[in-house]
Amino acid sequence: MEGNLLAVHGGGPTAVLNASLYGVIRQAQECGIGKIYGAVGGSEAILKENFVDMGKLPDEKIERLLQTPGTAIGSSRFPLEQEHYEAMASVLKKHGIKYVLFNGGNGTMDACGKVSKACQGEDIYVVGIPKTMDNDISIIDHAPGFPSAAKYIATVTNEVGADVKSLPIHVCVIEAMGRNAGWITAASALARKKPGDAPHLIYLPERNFHEEEFLADVKRLYDELGGVVAVVSEGLRNEKGESIVPPIFKTDRAVYYGDVSAYLAELVIKKLGIKARSEKPGLCGRASMALQSRVDREEAILAGREAVKAAVVGKTGVMVGIRRMEGEGYRIETPLIPIEEVMLHERVMPETYINERGNDVTEHFVQWCRPLIDGELPEMVSFKDEAAQALKSRI
Amino acid sequence: MEGNLLAVHGGGPTAVLNASLYGVIRQAQECGIGKIYGAVGGSEAILKENFVDMGKLPDEKIERLLQTPGTAIGSSRFPLEQEHYEAMASVLKKHGIKYVLFNGGNGTMDACGKVSKACQGEDIYVVGIPKTMDNDISIIDHAPGFPSAAKYIATVTNEVGADVKSLPIHVCVIEAMGRNAGWITAASALARKKPGDAPHLIYLPERNFHEEEFLADVKRLYDELGGVVAVVSEGLRNEKGESIVPPIFKTDRAVYYGDVSAYLAELVIKKLGIKARSEKPGLCGRASMALQSRVDREEAILAGREAVKAAVVGKTGVMVGIRRMEGEGYRIETPLIPIEEVMLHERVMPETYINERGNDVTEHFVQWCRPLIDGELPEMVSFKDEAAQALKSRI
Repeated sequence: MEGNLLAVHGGGPTAVLNASLYGVIRQAQECGIGKIYGAVGGSEAILKENFVDMGKLPDEKIERLLQTPGTAIGSSRFPLEQEHYEAMASVLKKHGIKYVLFNGGNGTMDACGKVSKACQGEDIYVVGIPKTMDNDISIIDHAPGFPSAAKYIATVTNEVGADVKSLPIHVCVIEAMGRNAGWITAASALARKKPGDAPHLIYLPERNFHEEEFLADVKRLYDELGGVVAVVSEGLRNEKGESIVPPIFKTDRAVYYGDVSAYLAELVIKKLGIKARSEKPGLCGRASMALQSRVDREEAILAGREAVKAAVVGKTGVMVGIRRMEGEGYRIETPLIPIEEVMLHERVMPETYINERGNDVTEHFVQWCRPLIDGELPEMVSFKDEAAQALKSRI
Repeated sequence: MEGNLLAVHGGGPTAVLNASLYGVIRQAQECGIGKIYGAVGGSEAILKENFVDMGKLPDEKIERLLQTPGTAIGSSRFPLEQEHYEAMASVLKKHGIKYVLFNGGNGTMDACGKVSKACQGEDIYVVGIPKTMDNDISIIDHAPGFPSAAKYIATVTNEVGADVKSLPIHVCVIEAMGRNAGWITAASALARKKPGDAPHLIYLPERNFHEEEFLADVKRLYDELGGVVAVVSEGLRNEKGESIVPPIFKTDRAVYYGDVSAYLAELVIKKLGIKARSEKPGLCGRASMALQSRVDREEAILAGREAVKAAVVGKTGVMVGIRRMEGEGYRIETPLIPIEEVMLHERVMPETYINERGNDVTEHFVQWCRPLIDGELPEMVSFKDEAAQALKSRI
């Protein structure tokens, strides 16, 4: 087949970004596309003409993509200007690249749309593949990357919950990623199997955070259970819309904040005199291969494959979507979505997924999220429950 | 067989504490011991006579112990006094308990020795099972719990390393558990396969921490690699022997410190103006079932079984040891160790396991640690390396 292909990754990685790359490479090979290039280090690499010829790599290296977190071709957060898009179009022509696949979140889809426009009139087809662990891409049901992040937070909440229940002497604040959207934080609710299971409290960035209410919630649960597990978003803000953690450093480009979990653990210690600790798995949660969701991996591969198929038939300026189909059971379809419908829109949790008090999610959210994490979590066993029951039956 | 058995857990859980309980229950069943009790909530439960009859539980619940973190019978950090030991002896007699298994770290072994003494002259046999993720029990090669903690930190360092290499724009400080002993922090070195792999820096509590040297190390590596992964112990201290993090709260019983990783990330941002973040998996590292080491699980079950066998033949005041056998390959034996040799001695990393600069471990340590983590970690694939090589061969 005439013409070469270029895969480009933008922004932070997920647990399945390489799975999408795998899908792109396999589909391109099956379509008999000429050279299968990867941009080494994000969209910046297009300008630098820094490409790797992935079609020449040994097969076992391609297979190993499925067990490698991050991205094998690298990514960037390089800020692009209009002049860059035009320069990119020239580079693509120069290298005989006919198919360009941009894999990323909202910012990358913006770039994808602009490159597509800059290539208008040329024999070049630019297609987007969604990716964001935060799940903040609009229009689609969810983005590849989120189901694995959801499975990770649900699993660690389940496991840390069993640990804390064993030795219930403290409050444990687990910090989840997602600065503006609470999807990952919310997914910790999937850890629950019966009343009293962790997480006991969930705080999302979609609602203002009130320290006094948090402390009252913690105190009440600590008195009842001994061990309390609260899952909080890294981006919690107060009623003024400011981060609950004071900024630690400012540069021209960014403001750096301390860790929300460490801040809240400290608050519990100081204000309630209760032992508290913070757990902040952070990047571990988007890099864990053991806790990758099978559904997520398969959808990520599919999205990569569908993007190549779309480009090959001449689609451009579109993103592969994920739409949940109506009816029994969990099934998806992958419609192509005009990129301008996606570009730079951030999706947060809808009100119907958050409880009234703002310290938990609703059953509605749990129903939506459960199919994404690839089956049930293992059920933990506690003989403390047996003992309590035996005691009850004696009384 | 005449006489009942009681299993008691002390201190913080590990990933395989329930595996040892599994070994105890299975061996006790095979020996035909009368009732198989668990103390519900640590040694305190003996005083409260709060026992659960585990022999009566359905088989599938016993099997589920192998995939449950924490401890199914609960634990405590209850401080015991001499009067408690004598009271315990009475309770044991009252319930016809002939065999007592204490599973825990240094503090629990101290209790184990004292209960054994308090039962002298009685037909009661008290045996210890080692357990500590920190690996700070003396005399033995390593304790059940440590190999899984080692596999966890090596795996997350490997995975976060792949993530950071994909988008090398920051310094990432991973905090490992072990306040006084650096064994877990050190085990992150097992993530390395080739030069340049994470972890790039390792700081242990056995050596004084110098902020200026740390910053110089980070700056040098950041200039070279872009992305830097440093693994640090939660218990780092300065030359005065004080925590590098100022205390945040003091009570009569304890002093609480902030998180070392958050502190160091902030230091990098403020002093070097480089983006930095902290990852503190914390309890996730001792609760992860997916990253449990197979070697660890098998040794934990074995230690539980051997403890029951020892008690049944009338041994008391001993702990089941783990000794690495001489010769080719990794094999262990489980000698019984007089408890007074173990009691309250804390084992830290020997000097031969730490490099001269105090920012890494030695190959000697890696050789010792590698057999414990159950085979190699999966090899990550990066096409950035291919691209760099291709570029080199073109020049």
